[in-house]
Amino acid sequence: MIKKVYKIIHEIVVDDSTKKGRLFDIIIQVLIILSLISFSLETLPELNNQLYDILQKIEVVCIYIFTIEYLLRIILNNKKNYMFSFFGLIDLLAILPFYITSGIDLRSVRVFRILKIFRLFKLLKYTKSIDRMSDAFKKIKNELVIFFIAILFLLYVSAVGIYYFENPVQPEKFKSVFHSLWWSVTTLTTVGYGDMYPITIGGKIFSTFIVFIGLGLVAVPSGLLATAFTQGIKKSKD
Amino acid sequence: MIKKVYKIIHEIVVDDSTKKGRLFDIIIQVLIILSLISFSLETLPELNNQLYDILQKIEVVCIYIFTIEYLLRIILNNKKNYMFSFFGLIDLLAILPFYITSGIDLRSVRVFRILKIFRLFKLLKYTKSIDRMSDAFKKIKNELVIFFIAILFLLYVSAVGIYYFENPVQPEKFKSVFHSLWWSVTTLTTVGYGDMYPITIGGKIFSTFIVFIGLGLVAVPSGLLATAFTQGIKKSKD
Amino acid sequence: MIKKVYKIIHEIVVDDSTKKGRLFDIIIQVLIILSLISFSLETLPELNNQLYDILQKIEVVCIYIFTIEYLLRIILNNKKNYMFSFFGLIDLLAILPFYITSGIDLRSVRVFRILKIFRLFKLLKYTKSIDRMSDAFKKIKNELVIFFIAILFLLYVSAVGIYYFENPVQPEKFKSVFHSLWWSVTTLTTVGYGDMYPITIGGKIFSTFIVFIGLGLVAVPSGLLATAFTQGIKKSKD
Amino acid sequence: MIKKVYKIIHEIVVDDSTKKGRLFDIIIQVLIILSLISFSLETLPELNNQLYDILQKIEVVCIYIFTIEYLLRIILNNKKNYMFSFFGLIDLLAILPFYITSGIDLRSVRVFRILKIFRLFKLLKYTKSIDRMSDAFKKIKNELVIFFIAILFLLYVSAVGIYYFENPVQPEKFKSVFHSLWWSVTTLTTVGYGDMYPITIGGKIFSTFIVFIGLGLVAVPSGLLATAFTQGIKKSKD
Repeated sequence: MIKKVYKIIHEIVVDDSTKKGRLFDIIIQVLIILSLISFSLETLPELNNQLYDILQKIEVVCIYIFTIEYLLRIILNNKKNYMFSFFGLIDLLAILPFYITSGIDLRSVRVFRILKIFRLFKLLKYTKSIDRMSDAFKKIKNELVIFFIAILFLLYVSAVGIYYFENPVQPEKFKSVFHSLWWSVTTLTTVGYGDMYPITIGGKIFSTFIVFIGLGLVAVPSGLLATAFTQGIKKSKD
Repeated sequence: MIKKVYKIIHEIVVDDSTKKGRLFDIIIQVLIILSLISFSLETLPELNNQLYDILQKIEVVCIYIFTIEYLLRIILNNKKNYMFSFFGLIDLLAILPFYITSGIDLRSVRVFRILKIFRLFKLLKYTKSIDRMSDAFKKIKNELVIFFIAILFLLYVSAVGIYYFENPVQPEKFKSVFHSLWWSVTTLTTVGYGDMYPITIGGKIFSTFIVFIGLGLVAVPSGLLATAFTQGIKKSKD
Repeated sequence: MIKKVYKIIHEIVVDDSTKKGRLFDIIIQVLIILSLISFSLETLPELNNQLYDILQKIEVVCIYIFTIEYLLRIILNNKKNYMFSFFGLIDLLAILPFYITSGIDLRSVRVFRILKIFRLFKLLKYTKSIDRMSDAFKKIKNELVIFFIAILFLLYVSAVGIYYFENPVQPEKFKSVFHSLWWSVTTLTTVGYGDMYPITIGGKIFSTFIVFIGLGLVAVPSGLLATAFTQGIKKSKD
Repeated sequence: MIKKVYKIIHEIVVDDSTKKGRLFDIIIQVLIILSLISFSLETLPELNNQLYDILQKIEVVCIYIFTIEYLLRIILNNKKNYMFSFFGLIDLLAILPFYITSGIDLRSVRVFRILKIFRLFKLLKYTKSIDRMSDAFKKIKNELVIFFIAILFLLYVSAVGIYYFENPVQPEKFKSVFHSLWWSVTTLTTVGYGDMYPITIGGKIFSTFIVFIGLGLVAVPSGLLATAFTQGIKKSKD
């Protein structure tokens, strides 16, 4: 009898080729999203106490279900394999904070639960596309590393440069090289909030050069990824 | 005699391979644009009453013509086919609000009329290019879905993260996770209005990571589309 | 004797395969840039009168030289051919405003002179690359037209949408559909000056959809151009 | 005996195929980053004197080590070859400012030390990828030059245009064509700080055209680089 129950549970929790298995996965995903929504709603400052209590209860229930799921997976899978697998660690991170925190407010840690959502890709059977993409990624890894170093280099150089141009006139905003780094980030990514910008002629000319070089450096890696991905798709479809 | 009239009207309204048919389509398109312009002009606050009346009359005339066109299409086409086709529903949406609203101000619904403009592509004989593009689109659909989920995930994670960094210092701006989502959107798309930006060191470092990851995630789908489209063009021209 | 002079002048002005011809072209280009710089300097409000007079004189001299060049080109080339050619009209536009303006301030028209700079490409012998690029451009013309119409459509739809969300709360900024169009432009291009942005929840959700769709629409044409150009280069080099 | 010492030092400093040589290179890299961090920390205004002294000492020690390294490289390498090589000049620039400055504050020059970091690419054995990228770069050089000139042209034209539209209403911000150039840069790169933006109808319509043209011009070169790089990778891997 136990063997039969074991088999049924195995089918539901571990096996995702059966109908029951897929349904179980979908329920878990819905619970994850539910717990994320309730977590987000709790941050609303205008929330009344009654609703807050309901949301908390939803979260607690979700955590209990996730814990049961986690324990079942450990028991049913080859123990070690699952516990130290990528998904095993994520599942642990998603429930652990709830049990180890007491007294102190560690609400933020709860957000790790979102990582569980990565199972979604497995569920949606996109593994082939993801494999293809990680293959394409590996091919251009060297180029991406070079661009990454070049961007870091440009970020630092532009921070130092703008510091020397703007610090004398705007000592409040361009306080130090580290403060100027924030300007480098918002400018090279073209976000441009407008909280920091050069006002000296030198700073403006320097920014002009930096931003045009930066546009190239920042845009090329995305382009590399895009073309590499398309080639991977093309090859596998030919 | 009636048969002859029927035939002529059919030629004008439904058939777009004849000269008359094309002229009729062009007139309808011009009326659509005219009605959109008059609709937009009506929103101007400084508009004097006289002009407002003229614009209203133009709109009413346009709607009557569209109604006649719609009825003719129903009569002339195989009724059901047209009524429940894509263009049939659009044409209905474009005139319906005018007849069902009375008393309440439903001016905004009138904007559905713009959907009629999609007939333009049919008129301009770009169907081949559109087919080619939707073929290319299908090939990379899986990749686009993955990126779409990844972007949603990043939007949420960045909203939660910035909320924890900035809420204590800027409780007015980063009120809740939902309010922080707006920051995520404007930052990851690099719009950067400047209405919300991090001021804590932790928030700035977090944003730096998020914006660089985000730039990649947001730019790659457009790149994928562009390369897929070009390959589609190349193949069909070889 | 006259024939010899004619031949020498022809060599200098029209023929750009000889050493003298190239030198003449370079001198004209330098004069164009000189006249543009002096024109720009004149807009500086802190300029003293003495320098202003010098700059004006430089401009007048440049114009006289351009006029002589223009007349020589008319005489030396097959008259009609040059006068109604692209470069002929540009050269005329570059000098005409100087002669027809009197009394009224038409300084702005002088800027047409900059068009003369397009001769630079001819001078730099990049015609092959430009040809290759315009070939690539033609191949994807249909796609570009479709995207152009789609962008126009999205600009209008987003302007109407944001008008309905934001006009009731920010009637000063989102005055009419036309005023809202400016928001559409700055948002869809991700410039995001911060002079106009949604503050209602509806407006923010609407903007989120619009900006993600818009990012795709706006980025794809540049990507199409880039991949088409590279394929053109590849083909001609194989 | 001296020969043996010479050989060992040669192995450590010049040869980077041996274990010792690689370790030496890594130590130098760490020192470069250490000296850059200490340099950046010194710009912090809240720094106490004690820490400032420690940072200064770190910098001095780093410079001494770099000097010894530089002298060793000159002695051990074929003298002339190294001194006038790219890395030789960079190494000199990284230490020279320390010795020639006295009295006057030339802290900014110290930043040249960062250039030493380029040795990193050699250390990381990415030379093959860099070669491949510079090959791809050469292939599209002509196209990049054309786009570079076109961007310069557009920057100038947009500055002149916006000056004429906005100067009469915002003389403080759009003071001259040169001041307007800053607007052109922040707009065409889509940074959009919000320190300068058009408020007239004419200026807004003009900006709309400019920013859409500009988006294409600015985005295409990055796309060209990306596709050219991917083709280079593909070719070398086939």
